[in-house]
Amino acid sequence: MSNFATNSLGVIQPQTLHFNEPLTLASGKTIDEYDIVYETYGSLNAKGDNAVLVCHALSADHHAAGYHSESDSKPGWWDLCIGPGKAIDTNRFFVVSPGNLGQCGGSTGPMSINPKTGKAYGPDFPVVTVSDWVNYQERLADSLGIAQWAAVAGGSLGGMQAMQWSIQFPTRIRHAIIIASAPKLSAQNIAFNAVARQAIMSDPAFHEGRYYDHKVVPASGLKIARMLGHITYLSDDAMGDKFGRDVKNEQLNYNYGVEFQVESYLHYQGESFAARFDANTYLLMTKALDYFDPAEKEGGDLAAVFSKTDSQFFLASFTTDWRFSPQRSREIVRALTDSKRDVSYLEFESNHGHDAFLVDNAEYIAAFSAYMNNIEISE
Amino acid sequence: MSNFATNSLGVIQPQTLHFNEPLTLASGKTIDEYDIVYETYGSLNAKGDNAVLVCHALSADHHAAGYHSESDSKPGWWDLCIGPGKAIDTNRFFVVSPGNLGQCGGSTGPMSINPKTGKAYGPDFPVVTVSDWVNYQERLADSLGIAQWAAVAGGSLGGMQAMQWSIQFPTRIRHAIIIASAPKLSAQNIAFNAVARQAIMSDPAFHEGRYYDHKVVPASGLKIARMLGHITYLSDDAMGDKFGRDVKNEQLNYNYGVEFQVESYLHYQGESFAARFDANTYLLMTKALDYFDPAEKEGGDLAAVFSKTDSQFFLASFTTDWRFSPQRSREIVRALTDSKRDVSYLEFESNHGHDAFLVDNAEYIAAFSAYMNNIEISE
Repeated sequence: MSNFATNSLGVIQPQTLHFNEPLTLASGKTIDEYDIVYETYGSLNAKGDNAVLVCHALSADHHAAGYHSESDSKPGWWDLCIGPGKAIDTNRFFVVSPGNLGQCGGSTGPMSINPKTGKAYGPDFPVVTVSDWVNYQERLADSLGIAQWAAVAGGSLGGMQAMQWSIQFPTRIRHAIIIASAPKLSAQNIAFNAVARQAIMSDPAFHEGRYYDHKVVPASGLKIARMLGHITYLSDDAMGDKFGRDVKNEQLNYNYGVEFQVESYLHYQGESFAARFDANTYLLMTKALDYFDPAEKEGGDLAAVFSKTDSQFFLASFTTDWRFSPQRSREIVRALTDSKRDVSYLEFESNHGHDAFLVDNAEYIAAFSAYMNNIEISE
Repeated sequence: MSNFATNSLGVIQPQTLHFNEPLTLASGKTIDEYDIVYETYGSLNAKGDNAVLVCHALSADHHAAGYHSESDSKPGWWDLCIGPGKAIDTNRFFVVSPGNLGQCGGSTGPMSINPKTGKAYGPDFPVVTVSDWVNYQERLADSLGIAQWAAVAGGSLGGMQAMQWSIQFPTRIRHAIIIASAPKLSAQNIAFNAVARQAIMSDPAFHEGRYYDHKVVPASGLKIARMLGHITYLSDDAMGDKFGRDVKNEQLNYNYGVEFQVESYLHYQGESFAARFDANTYLLMTKALDYFDPAEKEGGDLAAVFSKTDSQFFLASFTTDWRFSPQRSREIVRALTDSKRDVSYLEFESNHGHDAFLVDNAEYIAAFSAYMNNIEISE
């Protein structure tokens, strides 16, 4: 007897595919061979037209839904939206969730052994872009016999991958689901990433990225990076509602230790993240964000880029998201309407800032579910 | 012949007063003796009713206006607003600008010699609050023979001091000028400070604040703190207008070095700040911000606190300031009107974020000047 909810996928086993065909990256560098670790939920139908690709954001991985064991207390990162009867309904769809190249959850990344040296790649792992990930995910689609995705879906950096799929392989995607995302980073977005990278790279334990060889990790720098990131994921209001100016102890200490609950929370979040995540991967993910700018090749004209797409688009944003605000989604929507694409866009009231795409919200879930349920698939 | 503009104060000589009377702080600790370094501009009139106290913010000091030498290229931090014919018109007012206790510009602070040990205070320097600074500034007023300030003025943390003066010494201040400030920090404000402190305190060169003894400075941590602070001083729009996604070199490098102009700018700002500012002072200043909460003693009722004040109030905020947004100033204004105080409040259109209080803006300067010119003083 399972302890999981009736609409849970239960225990999920990750799978691995090894690729020997070299992948040439935007940087001009090549990665000769690599593993893609991925999970699937639901079943591919006979015509193979019900596959949905789920793309993860900065700090997530292939584990998007279900649990890894009966005793697992925490499900995958988008379990809220993936499962039987959920927005991405696994009774209808065959969902594929890969860990991206450069990630630290199993797919080949900086922690993996470089076959040329027999040691971890570390800083020799090439910088990858959203466009590179789409090429990498296309290889996975080929291997799984998926000629065309019913939908490619993701939030934040994951939404950028869905957008890039519509641009890069217009005939292989029917619907792009782009949630809490942006057409490119703003100068302020890049600036926050620059501070995070500076914190990691100036940690003496970083050793220019070769910390694996020294058997240490730049936990201190990664903690700072995550504390900062966390502030940008939450809204000012949500932080205020959750913590206000509540103090940690009964009275003020007037020292440089932690005085307020919000500090205590951030320290905890930073430390637990630093204990589980790889610093080189964090750097790589922030760079993938920085470089994303699909309109650049058309001189900044995003509508011109979208005019070559064939898919339909669903976009959603959240009122208190200040990392990728509704305004940023509206820029995408405007370019899509200018290029006469078929686009649905909804802005949801939420107090949860950028994290809202991961948080239960009846209107968001209802709209997302309705859109997905209207996607036509064969029986 | 001077190279300075006709409305410049020219070369200014800082002055120092030594105080031997112990000052008891909010923390319960005492500082036995201390220097106040300050500058004055203009002359005190016969009745002594034309004195204006200028209070500085986080990273500034006593040098508010004029130059320190004929060859000095940069004037004091509020030279825009202090001088003959300027908003705080030195033809009318006698302006006093002290460096606060705990500062690193000359007034006694963590870098000063602790007379008890013969070594720099470092982390033994007590945490100080805005209320402590007001007591400290009152000592200076007494020494200079100023029974009542015509006005106390400041922006950001300086505005908090002006507010605190109106509360703490209601009969010694006629006008409180509170610009781009807040009634207390939000959880998000505290969170940013916590990240900055973490960056400094986890720098191995910090040595628990005793870095002077090791003849090093935690420049790396202080650089990160300042890079982060700088993002919060600028608006997203201003950063976008100034840098956009302009790249530093002609083409992308696809590595972990600096790629975009905004990164280059932040690195430069962080490094130049780390070369001039003391890390222990930075910690102390962020703590003074965190602790500021004048309504706390009345259970959060700011109007109740203001009901005991006697001064008039001038408040100003700037549309794109997201560190202390117009909403935060309106909270103060609401409490002042609820307590039936005399308050003028203006919100100015500006693209300069929190820094706007230091930036030329015709409407802001005109309104500030008009208010100051209406302050009655004897001939």
